[in-house]
Amino acid sequence: MPSPLFSRLCLIGIGLIGSSLARAVKAKSLAGHIACFSAPDGSMETALRLGIVDSIHDTAVQAAEGADLVVLAVPAGVMGDLARTLVPTLAPGCILSDVGSVKQGIVNAIAPLLPNGVHLVPGHPIAGTEHSGPEAGFAELFRDRWCILTPPAGTNPEAIRKVRTLWEAIGSRVDVMDAHHHDQVLAITSHLPHLIAYTIVGTADDLQDDLKREVIQYSASGFRDFTRIAASDPTMWRDIFLENRTAVLETLQRFTEDLTAMQRAIRRGDGEALHSLFTRTRAIRRSIIDARQA
Amino acid sequence: MPSPLFSRLCLIGIGLIGSSLARAVKAKSLAGHIACFSAPDGSMETALRLGIVDSIHDTAVQAAEGADLVVLAVPAGVMGDLARTLVPTLAPGCILSDVGSVKQGIVNAIAPLLPNGVHLVPGHPIAGTEHSGPEAGFAELFRDRWCILTPPAGTNPEAIRKVRTLWEAIGSRVDVMDAHHHDQVLAITSHLPHLIAYTIVGTADDLQDDLKREVIQYSASGFRDFTRIAASDPTMWRDIFLENRTAVLETLQRFTEDLTAMQRAIRRGDGEALHSLFTRTRAIRRSIIDARQA
Repeated sequence: MPSPLFSRLCLIGIGLIGSSLARAVKAKSLAGHIACFSAPDGSMETALRLGIVDSIHDTAVQAAEGADLVVLAVPAGVMGDLARTLVPTLAPGCILSDVGSVKQGIVNAIAPLLPNGVHLVPGHPIAGTEHSGPEAGFAELFRDRWCILTPPAGTNPEAIRKVRTLWEAIGSRVDVMDAHHHDQVLAITSHLPHLIAYTIVGTADDLQDDLKREVIQYSASGFRDFTRIAASDPTMWRDIFLENRTAVLETLQRFTEDLTAMQRAIRRGDGEALHSLFTRTRAIRRSIIDARQA
Repeated sequence: MPSPLFSRLCLIGIGLIGSSLARAVKAKSLAGHIACFSAPDGSMETALRLGIVDSIHDTAVQAAEGADLVVLAVPAGVMGDLARTLVPTLAPGCILSDVGSVKQGIVNAIAPLLPNGVHLVPGHPIAGTEHSGPEAGFAELFRDRWCILTPPAGTNPEAIRKVRTLWEAIGSRVDVMDAHHHDQVLAITSHLPHLIAYTIVGTADDLQDDLKREVIQYSASGFRDFTRIAASDPTMWRDIFLENRTAVLETLQRFTEDLTAMQRAIRRGDGEALHSLFTRTRAIRRSIIDARQA
């Protein structure tokens, strides 16, 4: 049997993404052993019982001992504290990665703490569902999805190659880009849509009771899709908006300007402006289908 | 063989909704004959070739001759002209219905033109896809979906019952409500979500080219869902926003206020406000799943 890509993978956090990664890594025999530490919410015990990790530990530092790959899969909000405790203890040769949705903050927080010989290769698998927790994960979650790696300039190429190989082995397409640019792209493709979905579902929740009952009853395509998005993990999304504040606010500003223009077109009965925009947006859908993301 | 519910159904317009209705009516043998008239875009010829209507006609008036049910399935924007030509020619006993997404305008436009003995039972099947045209239709489109009927006060109860029976026979759940109230409910469940999806996809389309390429490439859940909504028929949606202008603008105003509050929470780093809203919106999703609309 050939030796696995990593001899010991340590997963810190074992929610939807962490547990899907563990399942995929096991399915492809990419790690000799999976060690796990999670917040004291019972999730690592669940993961051990489900057989998707091999050992669980009392602290993150203990879980990471001897690991050649450590993946942080915790909400962005606890990442800072975790990094301060864990990162300085990592041994030379270890690769440190994560699966967070915002990248510049991670790089800024971790890079200064990095011991000599430890390689930082942050990652963001663009995949997920509105469900949370270790039981919600599945090995196929990353198949045909992008995983974006944002290693700081000068990162060891061999470390980047190994992390890329891991994601490709579980079915992802991998791209490498600058962390700041990543955060700008994701602000529009993911963060703003979530912000808007949360807002509109909140607007509906504030309606008087009889109207609200009917909004739920007759929930059509459109609102129904928004409620699915707005059912995403509240802690994770709070952290994303705070972490990627600058890019989200800038994107929101553009969107608000465009929405005001739409409002004006409707108020003035400018059917031509509406029709012209709606025709343009159809073309974007076509591009996405062509890019095999729909 | 028992006689069908309607001896002659006339469909004016044969796009996604009209052709799905024709297919479903045929599948359940609910009409002895389906006559059709459409705009001169080849769609009624396609429908005849596909065998989903029995006859096609040179004018709407000719198609409606002898029909006991006439269903208008055309964009709201051409409804007014069509009604002025067609409605005064309908014979007593005929039921006139439609499938438009906005109801108050239809009732206002048609009611004054209605000959004695012709029954107006406007309808709105809350169903659809982002595709258009007679080839995009399918008989199961209305199954387990709501169809809302908005007959004016005093409409013949037997006429309402027959239209209700038709929709229930093809799998829909039927409710009856006031046209104005219908338009308010739909403004939030359907029209505002579409308006927002069109806007955000337009915002993305305005990005500089390199960023736009990556937005398409890494289109994640969220934006991808929005592009599907924003690929809906441009003409139909232009007409909906213009027809339901008052309710859409009022709903948009509430949404904009709520979005401004979110913007403020993000700018001030108010994680508690964000988390509390995101928790509340999760509950709405649960209600919709319980109402069997998800």
